[in-house]
Amino acid sequence: MSIPIIRDVLEESNALAERNRAAFDEHGIFVVNVMSSPGAGKTTLLGRTIAELQAAGLRCAVIEGDITSTLDSERLAPLGIPIVQANTQPFGGDCHVGSHLVNAALAMLPLDNLDYIFIENIGNLVCPAEFDLGENVKVVVLSLPEGDDKPMKYPLMFRECRMCLINKMDLLPHLDINVPKLHRNLELVNGDLQVLLVSGKTGLGIPLWCEWLESLRTAAQNELHEL
Amino acid sequence: MSIPIIRDVLEESNALAERNRAAFDEHGIFVVNVMSSPGAGKTTLLGRTIAELQAAGLRCAVIEGDITSTLDSERLAPLGIPIVQANTQPFGGDCHVGSHLVNAALAMLPLDNLDYIFIENIGNLVCPAEFDLGENVKVVVLSLPEGDDKPMKYPLMFRECRMCLINKMDLLPHLDINVPKLHRNLELVNGDLQVLLVSGKTGLGIPLWCEWLESLRTAAQNELHEL
Repeated sequence: MSIPIIRDVLEESNALAERNRAAFDEHGIFVVNVMSSPGAGKTTLLGRTIAELQAAGLRCAVIEGDITSTLDSERLAPLGIPIVQANTQPFGGDCHVGSHLVNAALAMLPLDNLDYIFIENIGNLVCPAEFDLGENVKVVVLSLPEGDDKPMKYPLMFRECRMCLINKMDLLPHLDINVPKLHRNLELVNGDLQVLLVSGKTGLGIPLWCEWLESLRTAAQNELHEL
Repeated sequence: MSIPIIRDVLEESNALAERNRAAFDEHGIFVVNVMSSPGAGKTTLLGRTIAELQAAGLRCAVIEGDITSTLDSERLAPLGIPIVQANTQPFGGDCHVGSHLVNAALAMLPLDNLDYIFIENIGNLVCPAEFDLGENVKVVVLSLPEGDDKPMKYPLMFRECRMCLINKMDLLPHLDINVPKLHRNLELVNGDLQVLLVSGKTGLGIPLWCEWLESLRTAAQNELHEL
């Protein structure tokens, strides 16, 4: 008698992430998974970032994760790039973008004509950190008004990411926040984390952030060519 | 042959919530489940709220939910009230406070000498909305810098709550936010939602919020006495 075993959900999720990764590599696309709390300013930052990359001749697309609504996709529509809205409400209102959603989105994107795909994850500093989507790099956006203690309270997110963008720096004069302490907390949680000060409102730090992305993308391309 | 069925996790969670509710009612304690995104200012608001209630002779305790760290408990310690730290990391780093954690906390609180218990949930605008803890009322804190579109993007949270505290109103002059639009979005999602403008920094709105709590607590007490 054989007893059916409920398969590890993560196993299936990871297998799909590997398929996504293979598709990205095959097409030479660099994929960035952007995560944050709700309202940290991911969409505005992405708008600025993609405009900067477009000006350099780079071709971008966005997979827009949300539980419901197409608000963020509509905000990015003026960029004139391919955008796929990935809503989790039909999947039980999931609190994170899953690798199956990314996989489904791939069929709707012009993979032969892209340099970057940005996945804007659902606003949540906890659950999205736990899932591999097949991306090249995970990035966390921390909004300055959220305070300097967030790395200590949500350590997994800051450990999984290679870059932390500290956003809404334009609000610094109006906040009781200790930025050196924030830097110290980030370093305590992840000594390898890169940190950039940015503002989606003023554009502060966007060129440097795009340079960092380009250096990673070029390195990934070279690695693929050597294989 | 009998096939074992994995029991509905929610069923067990709800049964524990009912036990919590019975214990709260038995002791005449009014319980408030406070939820928000990370960094929306729950702890500062709770500090102000409890100080105001203490001044009126009311006895408060806090169940402090976090994945890890005791940072928020330490911030509230000067109030001199009973505080139980409920960390979810030993339970897999859960992204919300569960009814089992509240139940465990009850054994550590002086139930005969309390008027209020505040549960400070984990910073997350998604998952905590799905769970009944046995509380009397659910409250969401929305930080003004998070933007006016949050009710549309995280509708369940705003539907489950009876009160939305719009916090960090002191930042209004420095933000591109449309407050009337935020009010409209809140009403679209939940026409019965009460909304108060507050500031944990300046104390704006705290007396009114405490009056609202007291009116609900008194009504709940009267209802229990009638039974």
